[in-house]
Amino acid sequence: MGGDHAPLAVVRGVEAACAENVADVVLVGDENVIGPLLVSRSNIEIVHTPVVVSMDDSPSIAIRRKKDSSMAKAFTLLKEGKVDGVVSAGNSGAAMAFAIFTLGRIPGVERPAILTVHPNALGTLSALLDAGGNVDCKSSHLVQFAIMGDVFGKRILGVEAPRIGLLSNGEEETKGNELTRETHALLKTLPLNYAGYVEGNDLYNGKTDVVVTDGFVGNVALKVSEGIAELMVAFLKERIGKSTKSKMGYLLLSDVFKALSKATDYSEYGGMPLVGVDGVCIICHGKSNERAIKNAVIQAKGFVGKNLNGHIKDAMEAYASKLRNKEL
Amino acid sequence: MGGDHAPLAVVRGVEAACAENVADVVLVGDENVIGPLLVSRSNIEIVHTPVVVSMDDSPSIAIRRKKDSSMAKAFTLLKEGKVDGVVSAGNSGAAMAFAIFTLGRIPGVERPAILTVHPNALGTLSALLDAGGNVDCKSSHLVQFAIMGDVFGKRILGVEAPRIGLLSNGEEETKGNELTRETHALLKTLPLNYAGYVEGNDLYNGKTDVVVTDGFVGNVALKVSEGIAELMVAFLKERIGKSTKSKMGYLLLSDVFKALSKATDYSEYGGMPLVGVDGVCIICHGKSNERAIKNAVIQAKGFVGKNLNGHIKDAMEAYASKLRNKEL
Repeated sequence: MGGDHAPLAVVRGVEAACAENVADVVLVGDENVIGPLLVSRSNIEIVHTPVVVSMDDSPSIAIRRKKDSSMAKAFTLLKEGKVDGVVSAGNSGAAMAFAIFTLGRIPGVERPAILTVHPNALGTLSALLDAGGNVDCKSSHLVQFAIMGDVFGKRILGVEAPRIGLLSNGEEETKGNELTRETHALLKTLPLNYAGYVEGNDLYNGKTDVVVTDGFVGNVALKVSEGIAELMVAFLKERIGKSTKSKMGYLLLSDVFKALSKATDYSEYGGMPLVGVDGVCIICHGKSNERAIKNAVIQAKGFVGKNLNGHIKDAMEAYASKLRNKEL
Repeated sequence: MGGDHAPLAVVRGVEAACAENVADVVLVGDENVIGPLLVSRSNIEIVHTPVVVSMDDSPSIAIRRKKDSSMAKAFTLLKEGKVDGVVSAGNSGAAMAFAIFTLGRIPGVERPAILTVHPNALGTLSALLDAGGNVDCKSSHLVQFAIMGDVFGKRILGVEAPRIGLLSNGEEETKGNELTRETHALLKTLPLNYAGYVEGNDLYNGKTDVVVTDGFVGNVALKVSEGIAELMVAFLKERIGKSTKSKMGYLLLSDVFKALSKATDYSEYGGMPLVGVDGVCIICHGKSNERAIKNAVIQAKGFVGKNLNGHIKDAMEAYASKLRNKEL
């Protein structure tokens, strides 16, 4: 029931995924609304509830007052083992709160983080976390993000020894703020392929596979990226419309522009996993279209199949054991 | 003597500015190196010193051991009233340290900030501060940045009541981190055209004239912008080179691409003023070319002519007086 184009985009995206036998999907929401939209019910089941968490509900209000909402029910189904993962394009703060409240955290993870995947100049994918879950972080949180990012890099991005960077305002040891300096010192002691400080421009040049930062900076970095890309596209559009010559040029370049638009299209990459909760949870962009939802279902299926959370548990346990044995 | 292309780019940029009678310029540096490069000495004087602050010198080392450096001498000339402003493309940390150490701060300014100007979707210019001067900020620092940004917006950008935004991870009051929440509460009480929280994408859509943030986030935001712009350009270049059709398209669109490259070219906007020090100081990008240096000289001249620092002093005094009289 969540997202700017819900429930239609969600229904269509799920139908598209189910048509390819990606997974069996349970749609949680108002059957009277969802039912009539469904063209095919193959591999699709509906769990009915009329209550919806709105975009204006604060996470704490949603948790306390909307125990019968589609969001609450979806996470309960996961907790009860009736489904293997949850995908939501609704109120992301509320989804995060329900996920943590219902599923709990993986032992050793103080703060689950939102992870995003984006293309880089090398033509591969890089991950960033935290993309907005936790605005005020301690160094221990960032260390846990790095460990989870390492597991994600290995298991999902398929990199043997993911290079982990810590986002900072310069590469030199003298750079950084209090938080990054503390974190930097800790990360150097861990058995990770730690590449040290990286800068904002390194997010997209493929210098590292995983970039770690707090949720405030991560959110700003992603939104700035959106902003500058939109500005460039708007600039090109406006200028191209001004002359016949440039319109012709645009026609000749239309494949190139289409490829660029595909490469920078968030919907290609599905949603953002909330890593560190004890269950697969994908938080989708509010403006998710059919394609984004379909890709998020494929993503969730992949995380389940590759046992992402099992590997995160193992990594957190190994870290805790090293701490106990004073090996770090 | 500072910058990747120094001293040649600096000399040529200064000659270009002087040829247009922008200002009389004193080149501070090694006369044996600079002298032979000069084609014209009209409006140009050299103050000789062979000592140079290198990019590797830490600001504190530079201040203690390089009192005879070109950087030190330039700021001393300003302090002594022999010049009206300093432009440097050298070690920016050292330039900031020399500026603060030699010129002092404007009363009421705890932390001078680096300000940058960038184009927005409305076709006007927006400013951001702090772009990297101060990584760990208190709310009082951000409030002072807002007051200085307001003056900059009025006097330099020519906006009657500049809209001031505070960079955050969302627009809602519930968003932000500890620092922004404290700052937000303070900014609401000030006689500014305060627009509240803005997000990363708002940097470029012209929603506000001035965006305030700490130097860590500001630096990340600018570097991310560079990174995504470079990624998009690299993507287009690679694809365009792949077929004759797209190469023809590129030729037809060359004016548009040139205009885009001009709009996103930092050198068009000169350097970054260090606001809050008691003297005009422009810090240029290390990779500054002739054009950037010329524009920085024009910029410095403008700040002097428009008495930017006098107006900042007045604004800081007015703020201090309101605080004293408990009007805030």
